[in-house]
Amino acid sequence: MSADGKSGLQLRSLIKKSGELEISLVEIPTPEPATDEVVVRVEATPINPSDLGLLVGAADMSTAKAAGTKDAPVIRARVPDAAMRAMAGRLDQSMPVGNEGAGVVIRTGSSESAKALLGKTVSMIGGAMYSQYRTIKAGDCMPLPEGTTAADGASWFVNPLTALGMVETMRREGHKALVHTAAASNLGQMLNKICLKDGVDLVNIVRSSEQADILRKIGAKYVVDSKSPTFMNDLTEALSETGATIAFDAIGGGKLAGQILTCMEAAINKTAKVYSRYGSNVHKQVYIYGMLDPGPTELTRSFGMIWGVGGWLLFPFLMKIGPADGMKLRQRVASELKTTFASHYTQVVSLQEALQLSHLAVYGKRATGEKYLINPSKG
Amino acid sequence: MSADGKSGLQLRSLIKKSGELEISLVEIPTPEPATDEVVVRVEATPINPSDLGLLVGAADMSTAKAAGTKDAPVIRARVPDAAMRAMAGRLDQSMPVGNEGAGVVIRTGSSESAKALLGKTVSMIGGAMYSQYRTIKAGDCMPLPEGTTAADGASWFVNPLTALGMVETMRREGHKALVHTAAASNLGQMLNKICLKDGVDLVNIVRSSEQADILRKIGAKYVVDSKSPTFMNDLTEALSETGATIAFDAIGGGKLAGQILTCMEAAINKTAKVYSRYGSNVHKQVYIYGMLDPGPTELTRSFGMIWGVGGWLLFPFLMKIGPADGMKLRQRVASELKTTFASHYTQVVSLQEALQLSHLAVYGKRATGEKYLINPSKG
Repeated sequence: MSADGKSGLQLRSLIKKSGELEISLVEIPTPEPATDEVVVRVEATPINPSDLGLLVGAADMSTAKAAGTKDAPVIRARVPDAAMRAMAGRLDQSMPVGNEGAGVVIRTGSSESAKALLGKTVSMIGGAMYSQYRTIKAGDCMPLPEGTTAADGASWFVNPLTALGMVETMRREGHKALVHTAAASNLGQMLNKICLKDGVDLVNIVRSSEQADILRKIGAKYVVDSKSPTFMNDLTEALSETGATIAFDAIGGGKLAGQILTCMEAAINKTAKVYSRYGSNVHKQVYIYGMLDPGPTELTRSFGMIWGVGGWLLFPFLMKIGPADGMKLRQRVASELKTTFASHYTQVVSLQEALQLSHLAVYGKRATGEKYLINPSKG
Repeated sequence: MSADGKSGLQLRSLIKKSGELEISLVEIPTPEPATDEVVVRVEATPINPSDLGLLVGAADMSTAKAAGTKDAPVIRARVPDAAMRAMAGRLDQSMPVGNEGAGVVIRTGSSESAKALLGKTVSMIGGAMYSQYRTIKAGDCMPLPEGTTAADGASWFVNPLTALGMVETMRREGHKALVHTAAASNLGQMLNKICLKDGVDLVNIVRSSEQADILRKIGAKYVVDSKSPTFMNDLTEALSETGATIAFDAIGGGKLAGQILTCMEAAINKTAKVYSRYGSNVHKQVYIYGMLDPGPTELTRSFGMIWGVGGWLLFPFLMKIGPADGMKLRQRVASELKTTFASHYTQVVSLQEALQLSHLAVYGKRATGEKYLINPSKG
């Protein structure tokens, strides 16, 4: 990290044709800003589940070994042979990581919009945030309100817009309430706050009573535990009360997506008047947006014929709604950054610390309640 | 069957709370036609896979036993306990069967549109077609062109409109070619004829070389065999050549739906320029419209995040496109009834014969190439 910001460290993830993952730090010159660009000294960038996919890829992290030095640490791990096919597109490319972050603008291009940001603390979206300096378009920066730190604004995009995007998708597709799995996550808590504020019923599916408690404490009304022996009945009851016919599933693998559809159909049929062997005529939808369980999704199709399961991703959603509606969502995030959209971090680490095995073992688990923030300007 | 059509036999399917399926024939009085109704002497009504669902329900037909007499046969079989939950909506209700059929109008209500049909051979849609007489709205009948028999027109609705609906769905959802499974079926052959006529590329997935031969003989260009060791490569190749990104799957259970998505993604990525760990940004869709395999659908999600799997049914599709566009599809069927939409039957049976175990064993298998027609006015 040069004091003048002309060069700095950047985290890189590389999967070699040999099947070896290598995560390391490289010193790179900071690109000079073009007319409409700025250089940001990155001070806060979160490790989201969506970053881990690129950071560790399909590597088996139980094989991870540390190498290098304290200042230039290197992590190496094996990618199982069976998973290499899915990695084909990125082999032997040293890839920067980090979707979103925040920091201070230290240099700008000559455009008015770029110059206006000089000295400001801004949030950014666009990848390669696990870097000490990031040259980026002024338009991809959002100046943070007075009194908001880089840490406050670092997670301004992925989780807040994903949570808002779920509620928006629910509305646009004609549903009146929604279901969320792995619901005690940082994202899930945010979603509860949005729904409470907007008066939208949300059925939270968690995997332990501790997670249920987290949500009840922030005011969640409907929380069901998938580990409970009465799960299917509990879920059907909550779906019946709320009328939720759309779900967002972070887990992906296993039977859960199908169980949600089965319970939706059962809830709908409680009030059915006529038998139809094709099931109800109400559309039931599960969107899979994460893969906490990368195993196969198993759908036992006992939920009629009017259903859908599909992938859901933030960027295609934003493309679909267009820039004007996207801007409205961003403005809501900015105005509620310290309330609805506040993130809580369990650890703040430097780039070097992020490559310590002890930390990797914690954030790599994607465990509910553990959330890391990297401060590349630290240490 | 009274000579004046005042009463006649009707096939009934009953699942009792005890878990017993009972299929029988009952003599019922023919309802007098209301103003806008007609009475049709049914002469031809097919046994479609969509009829079998109501006819035998979830019963295990390997337990089927014959009872009754030759003139009043009865079939009894057991419904496995595990399947009874899905039958809850129809328990202890004696249900008529048969979605579509054709016959001669022998009596009418007083409206002009009803009277105009007297003596005509008409096709009908509306259920309860496994009957000697069917009182039905004039608007649910389609007069058949001169020289068209009831047998020619009996399968005018379900298969033709399903096949047309698939091509129409492909167009409306922005795809340029399509995939069909269990592709050598009566419906699948029809779909090939439509696609050949309309210049739409169709990738046929079959389960044997005999089925592949059936399709090649009628001009199919893309036929892949899911039992072949090179299936995944063959399918990817065909998808790459055609650009098909939507599939209609009659099978439902097992890995096939997921394999189709995997091959679609591989075909798309052949021309990808940039690595995205979320996969391509092209939407890939599989619609499940049948359940030849009622087991779970297993999706190994190795096809990025832009995908959907869902149910597809003819009636919701027709509701969605509206009556005007639906009428256009019907008119096309009427004008190509003896060519594109011709059905071939391997057996024509009476209602009594339909309840013989030897016949039930054949049509109950839903085997490609076996198609039964019931003539309720026979014998």
